[in-house]
This record gives sequence, C-alpha cells and structure tokens, in this order.
Amino acid sequence: MNFTGAHILSIEQFERADIEVLFGTADNMEPYAQRRRITRVLEGAILGNMFFEASTRTRISFGSAFNLLGGDVRESVGMDSSSLIKGESLQDTARVLSGFSDVICMRHPEPGSVAQFASASRVPVMNGGDGSNEHPSQALLDLYTIAKELQGRGRGIDGLRIAMVGDLKFGRTVHSLCKLLSLYQNVQLTLVSPVELAMPEKYIECLRKAGHQVVITDQLEASIAHVDIVYSTRIQEERFSDRAQADLYRGRFRLNQAIYTEHCEPNTVIMHPLPRDSRVEANELDTDLDTNPNLAIFRQADNGLLVRMALFVLVLDVAHLVDRHAKDVPWHNSRDLAK
Amino acid sequence: MNFTGAHILSIEQFERADIEVLFGTADNMEPYAQRRRITRVLEGAILGNMFFEASTRTRISFGSAFNLLGGDVRESVGMDSSSLIKGESLQDTARVLSGFSDVICMRHPEPGSVAQFASASRVPVMNGGDGSNEHPSQALLDLYTIAKELQGRGRGIDGLRIAMVGDLKFGRTVHSLCKLLSLYQNVQLTLVSPVELAMPEKYIECLRKAGHQVVITDQLEASIAHVDIVYSTRIQEERFSDRAQADLYRGRFRLNQAIYTEHCEPNTVIMHPLPRDSRVEANELDTDLDTNPNLAIFRQADNGLLVRMALFVLVLDVAHLVDRHAKDVPWHNSRDLAK
Amino acid sequence: MNFTGAHILSIEQFERADIEVLFGTADNMEPYAQRRRITRVLEGAILGNMFFEASTRTRISFGSAFNLLGGDVRESVGMDSSSLIKGESLQDTARVLSGFSDVICMRHPEPGSVAQFASASRVPVMNGGDGSNEHPSQALLDLYTIAKELQGRGRGIDGLRIAMVGDLKFGRTVHSLCKLLSLYQNVQLTLVSPVELAMPEKYIECLRKAGHQVVITDQLEASIAHVDIVYSTRIQEERFSDRAQADLYRGRFRLNQAIYTEHCEPNTVIMHPLPRDSRVEANELDTDLDTNPNLAIFRQADNGLLVRMALFVLVLDVAHLVDRHAKDVPWHNSRDLAK
Repeated sequence: MNFTGAHILSIEQFERADIEVLFGTADNMEPYAQRRRITRVLEGAILGNMFFEASTRTRISFGSAFNLLGGDVRESVGMDSSSLIKGESLQDTARVLSGFSDVICMRHPEPGSVAQFASASRVPVMNGGDGSNEHPSQALLDLYTIAKELQGRGRGIDGLRIAMVGDLKFGRTVHSLCKLLSLYQNVQLTLVSPVELAMPEKYIECLRKAGHQVVITDQLEASIAHVDIVYSTRIQEERFSDRAQADLYRGRFRLNQAIYTEHCEPNTVIMHPLPRDSRVEANELDTDLDTNPNLAIFRQADNGLLVRMALFVLVLDVAHLVDRHAKDVPWHNSRDLAK
Repeated sequence: MNFTGAHILSIEQFERADIEVLFGTADNMEPYAQRRRITRVLEGAILGNMFFEASTRTRISFGSAFNLLGGDVRESVGMDSSSLIKGESLQDTARVLSGFSDVICMRHPEPGSVAQFASASRVPVMNGGDGSNEHPSQALLDLYTIAKELQGRGRGIDGLRIAMVGDLKFGRTVHSLCKLLSLYQNVQLTLVSPVELAMPEKYIECLRKAGHQVVITDQLEASIAHVDIVYSTRIQEERFSDRAQADLYRGRFRLNQAIYTEHCEPNTVIMHPLPRDSRVEANELDTDLDTNPNLAIFRQADNGLLVRMALFVLVLDVAHLVDRHAKDVPWHNSRDLAK
Repeated sequence: MNFTGAHILSIEQFERADIEVLFGTADNMEPYAQRRRITRVLEGAILGNMFFEASTRTRISFGSAFNLLGGDVRESVGMDSSSLIKGESLQDTARVLSGFSDVICMRHPEPGSVAQFASASRVPVMNGGDGSNEHPSQALLDLYTIAKELQGRGRGIDGLRIAMVGDLKFGRTVHSLCKLLSLYQNVQLTLVSPVELAMPEKYIECLRKAGHQVVITDQLEASIAHVDIVYSTRIQEERFSDRAQADLYRGRFRLNQAIYTEHCEPNTVIMHPLPRDSRVEANELDTDLDTNPNLAIFRQADNGLLVRMALFVLVLDVAHLVDRHAKDVPWHNSRDLAK
C-alpha cells in the first residue's frame, strides 16, 4: 500500500508489510506523544475533524495527534441541520469541506458514508468510524497494543494466543481484529460469548483460511487460562432477542482480580476498546483490576495517539522530516509521575 | 474605505476601488489557499468565531482562512443558554468576548445584531450573516468568482450579462449581488423567477440607477441563452403563499446538462450559493452538470477562502508582510490531482 | 504552595504568599494580553478544555489565555451522551483524556467532580467550576481586580472596605472571595442582602476569625456610602422560598448612576461576576453606569485572561521563559482605541 495521499477507510487496505511500516512509524512518535520532544513538521497544515456523529475520545485523539505534529484542527460535531434539511449530498459536502483542509478525519453513523465522502474529497480522508462497518484506527491501535505488550516479552504476533470475550456478533472492534490477525501466522483464538452473540461465520472462516486455530465456547474461566491476551467487549442486554439467554448469561463474562488470579497466567494482558462500564451491574472489567499492571486498557488509549500520528505522518509523507528541527519540551511534564 | 481596523458589516461599505483592493489581495492568497506556500504572518493572533447560529461551511471557511495565515481560532456555536436566560445584552457579550481575540467573525439570526455587537466590540467584527439582512463575505466571494471566471476570457465585470434564477424575493445573496453590480457599468441582468418570488423593486431601481439593463421574466430557457453567468438560487415551496403558483412553477427552474447544452452559450458559467439540494424533486442544479467545467459552484466555495483571507489581511493590516518569510509546504498536496 | 504540576481545584490551596506570586505573574502577562507583544513559550503544548457544562465566557477565556502563550486547545462541550449511557466513570474519562493534553481545564455541574477527575488525571487539572462548590479562577480574578483597582490609588488589600450586595446565600463567587479576604488584614465588610439570602454563618466566622469587621444589613444605600469596592451579585427570584420576601426586596438592590452619585464616595469601584442582566426588571447594575469609569466589570473579565495565563505559566513552570524570544505584534491592534 502506498500511504502517500491515501484514504484510510478500511483495514482491508493493509498488508502485513504495511502494518510493519505503520507500527515502526508509531514507535517513532513516542517521544512526542510522551511530551519529551516537540516537532512542528505539520505547522501550517489543517485537519478537518468532521464528526457527524459525536465521539469525544476519538475526536480529541485525532485532534491531539495532529496538534502534536504542529498542525491546526478545524472541527464539526453533529449534523448541520440546515444543510441536511436543504438536501445537500455527502459528495457536495466533501467537495466543499475538502477545500478547507489538508486531511480529513470523518465519523458518520451510516456504513459506507465515509467512503462515499472520500470519493468526492480532494484531500485524504481517514475513517473515524462509519456505523456498524469499520473503525480502522481503533483496530490498528488494538493490534499495535498487542504487538507492544508481546514485544515486552520478546515475542511477536505470530503464535499469539488470544481470547475474545463478550458480544462477538455486534462487536465492530473484534471483527476488524480478526481480519488483521489473518495477516499473521499460528494464532490461537478462543471466542467466548453467549451462544446468541457468537462471532459471525465469515470471520471464523477468514481466520481458519489463514491457518489459525479457533475454539468457540460460552465458558469464560477455561478460556482465559492459557492466553497471552484477553480482549473483553461490552455485552448490551438489548442485543439479546431471547430473554432467557439474557438471564442465563448475566454476570457470566465479568472479569475481576479474583477471577484473573485464579485462572489466568501471571502475564496475561487484558484489553478492552473503552469506554468501560464501571457500574456494579455491568458485565465487563471490574475496577479492582486497575492496579493490575497487566490491565492494558489505558495504554491502549495512549497507543491510539501514536497510531494516529503515524497515519498522518505517512499519508502526508513527512516521516523523514519529523525528527528534523525537533526540540526539547520546556514546560513541566507530569507524565513520569503519572498514576 | 480604510480597511485597517474596520468592521465588515455590509457590502454598502464597499466602493469599486475597495473591491479592487480586496480582489487584488485575494489573488495574492492563492498560493497559500492552494497549499503551495505557508505563511505565519498572523501567528499569535486569535479569531473569535462567534456563531450564535450554526453554519458549518461558513464557520470552517473563516476558521481555515485564519489558520492559513498562522492564527488560532476560538469558537462558539449556538446560543449559550445560561447567558441568555440571565438576560445578558449583546453589547455586554461583545465587550467581554472582544477581550479574548484580535478579530471576531459573528453570525446571528437577527438582522442588525452583528452591527449592534460591533458597536460595543473592541476589535474588528466581520458579519458572517445576520438573518435576512446580509452575508457580505458570500456576496464578495460571488462577485470575485464572476470576476475570475470572466478574467479567464479576457473580460472584466463591466459589460457582464447575467441571469439570476429562482427565488429572487427572499434570496439574500442575489440582493447583495445586485447592490455590488451597481458599482459597475453596462451590466445586463435577466431576473428569472416565479411571479410571486420576483426581485423586490428597490434592487431593480438600484440597478437601473446605475444605468444597467434589467429584464424580468418567469421563463428560464430564453433567459439563459445569451449570458456569461447563470446565478441559480433555491426555491423553497413554503415561500409560495399561493398554492397554484407553487404547482405552476414546480420543476420549471431546474437546470441540467440537457437544458444547458440546448440553450446556453458554450462558455456560460453556472453559479449557486450552496448548499445545493441534490434530491430528485428539487428545483435546482442537477448533478449531471458536475462534469461540466463551466459549473463553478465549487470554485465559488474555494474562492471564499481567498476572499476571507484577504479580509483578515486587510483589516489587520498585514498585506505587505504575508509573503515575507513564506515557506514551501513540506507535506503531500493532493490538490493538483483533485477531482 | 508549589505551583509546578499542581492541580488548581480550590482557593483553599492558596496562602497569601501564593497569591502574591500569582498576581506578580499575572502583571507580567499584561503586554501579551494587551496584544503589544507575542510569546510562544507554550508552543507545542495542548490544553484539554473539558466543559461538561457549557460556559462560553469561561471556556473561551481559558482557551484564549492558552493560545496567547502559544499553545493549542482541544475542547469538549457538554456531556458525551454515548459514554454516559455506557456508564463510564469520571476516573476512566480522566485517565484517557489526560493522555491527550499537557494540562486540563474542567467544568462540571457536580460539586467535587473536578477533584475526582483530577485524582485519576496524569496532567494538572484546573477547576473551571464544579457546580455550587467553587470556581477558583473567578475568585482569583475578582481579588486581582480589587488589588489592581486599589493599587491605582496607592493602597493594598489590607484595610479594604467592601460591600457585598445581593444573593450572598447562593453566591459561589462571594463565598470564595470571603475565604480569600481572610488571608488579609483589617478588612471591613458590609454584607447586604435580603434576610433570606444572607451570607452563611461559616463564612462570617471565617472572616471574624481573621480579625475582620463584618456588618450585616438589608439596606443598600447606607452600606455603599463608605466603601472602596461594591461587589454586586444577581438575585434570582426563584431563590426566595418566601414569596413575601421576594415582593419586599424587588428592585431594592439595583445600582444605577443616580444612586451611585448620591451615596458612594467618588472613587468607589463597582464589580460584578457577569453576566449582568440588563433587562429593565432586573435587580442588578443599570447600563447607565457604563460610562462611569469606576464600573470595573469589564476590566474584571479582562483580568481573567491575565490570571488564567499566570496559572498556566506557573503550573507548567515556564514563568522565566515567557519573555525570552518575545516579539512585537505586527498586526493592527484596536485596543488603544477601545471603548
């Protein structure tokens, strides 16, 4: 894949070699994201952050990534009701708005909308999420997190043992992760979900075609016993059409320190796409895991900054210029004292 | 008109010589808007983008124009309901907010509100649209577009032949355009609208006083036969008080490639203030015109960036400094490959 | 108090010596806020402006302060309903969002929420207002204004004579001001309010413990006769549980030019936290005071910029670098011609 001037719409664009270029570039962003060095390589550039669907976290992550490279951000949140009422097409919106920026990040509730917008845009467009379809930068930061966590123990993604837990039927992030993992070798996946929320067949086929081993179960404890990564997702009770299943599975996929200690290997890493529902009745990750150094959910969010900076740097073709003229940070940096 | 420190509230402020200064400055902004060069002449300056009425396109156009000159943008969208409930006057709002910026762009649904705000502001205020009254930068970018399109064929605005089509009664943009054209000579206007939505008498008088020829009709095809510019506007059915007229005129002002080929001179330029209603039942410009190089509607929007940059540069008196210290753009520029 | 890396959550953190450091730094910000000089000391830094509760004035004041120091601002206004529905805790939000900035300013309707957020944030957090609890930067800009106005006549805060007028029961700003004044000596306070809206006992105790003289009354005219400062606050009729009191006090605390001339010393300064209700029926400051040079309400708002710049500079430990590399402002500055 040639990154220069490319739209980033789907993880299907990425070959394994592309991932390696992206992750290498993301690694180089670390001093900047950690506020040890400043670069102004994109000074004068403008990111158009078009969030037709609100998402504070993703929007601010892309915006901060662009600021960290020296660029400015112009934003739009929600639908501009006047233009909508006036029947403006996405293509017209794209032609006009793309005149005002150098790169666009777009989020929209309708699947395929971002690709449609990109087709009429005069600048590169990054998909910040198009409904039930994809959220490529999330999938890439998930994979990057997996790679970094394994690297810490001298291993790569090949040979990964991973359990995906929760709502695997509607979970956009696990679908994309499966596709990305199909670029690697010897991955062992355990797919843990209520029967009704099982991973759709097409992703399982994709994994098996890649030569991976796939185990399907609805039993949590056994599944997390011998894995490198547990990737947890939210289960929304409204997703169950069958009330009996909802009752049966309630609380059965909640991970906490006790369950972790009892069942997991001591270095098993826990991931989750966030936001995490921390209410007592939720079916997710308990806050008592917060002091467990293997809870990677916040490192995941931080990695989003690195991956998004890398995407900008590659698409705008300035990778070789980032470190030139880099300066030290003169202000106080709290990060080393961080919780 | 002395641009330095001036409020830009109405096109009535502009004499022909002022338009020439503005358009000359806008021409100089081209390398920057086209991302061939970078200037930071307004580095350290702050634009207060006060959009009490939302308008993504105009707001981002002004914001990007200011970023392209090196400045920062602080924005507000919609009414701050807490201040409103607390009965704060526009003047108090102006005094406070003008302390936080170097120039303000304001949009507000009430006619006259921007002038009222400007009277208490300590910094220059640009009218981004005050309800049914004016939208000066739109009128100026429309005229600039006309000038540029004609310049391409070795002509100026004097002697222009233009057809204005659609809702000429409520169309704020055509009203302002008429006033601006009154600064020129030998303009021939054909005003094409449903009888009930005809151009108000005062604008026709203004045009005749300037010595222009004005023809009034409700027939589209004959009107667009010998013109340099067709300026199309939206007709909203709700504007008709007479149901019979609404039925009579439905679809009668729609322009498409077939009608264009059959009736227009080969170089007739089509303009429209956008957004364009691209739904099948709409009464405007068909998308089959999109491949026609004489469809200038997107060049119009791009010209908005040039005109707004020029307004900032003149009002803040930095025209002579823009090119000093200008640098090349180091990142990938998609614009030359643009659709 | 060590400002470097500190959260600014409450004025209780401030000793008198800290106020002096802060106000000295705020004085140094004057050339920059007045647009005579430009500094880029925080170039590359990002402020996360997290306004879970909207407040245009405070948000733009903090944002402009940060831009004037060279930094970028990423903002969020209102609650992100998707995260809320998903039950995300404030701590999780803090951990994630604090990865995207160098300092955060937060406003939230719930008392204590900002401190809770700060406890999980990896960067310094400034309280932009947490419901009925505190709004520290407002209290500090109020005290700074008092100090500046008195300095103009060769006096300090010790020995201040001040009347606080209006709703002293629910007025967050007067509560904080009382606490701050307790750091000084020989202050004479007259607390003027409807009986039902009297200053809570705990603040009066705090003032008396500091050795200050406190007079309590519901009579306006006598109270403003011999004071340096009249601090006026809004009275909302809904605050009265007793309808008879609401009727009794209506219009009894309105200050206008006639009352001022008749009762106040010629140099008595009038302050108000803004926004001011300028409607005829309101119980506050009449607009006929606008030409009175002792009406300090807009200087108060401008001082907010100085105090907030000073807070950023101290918390991020760049006070000694601000003036280094400072440059002249090349664009037109309207401020000297300001109303």
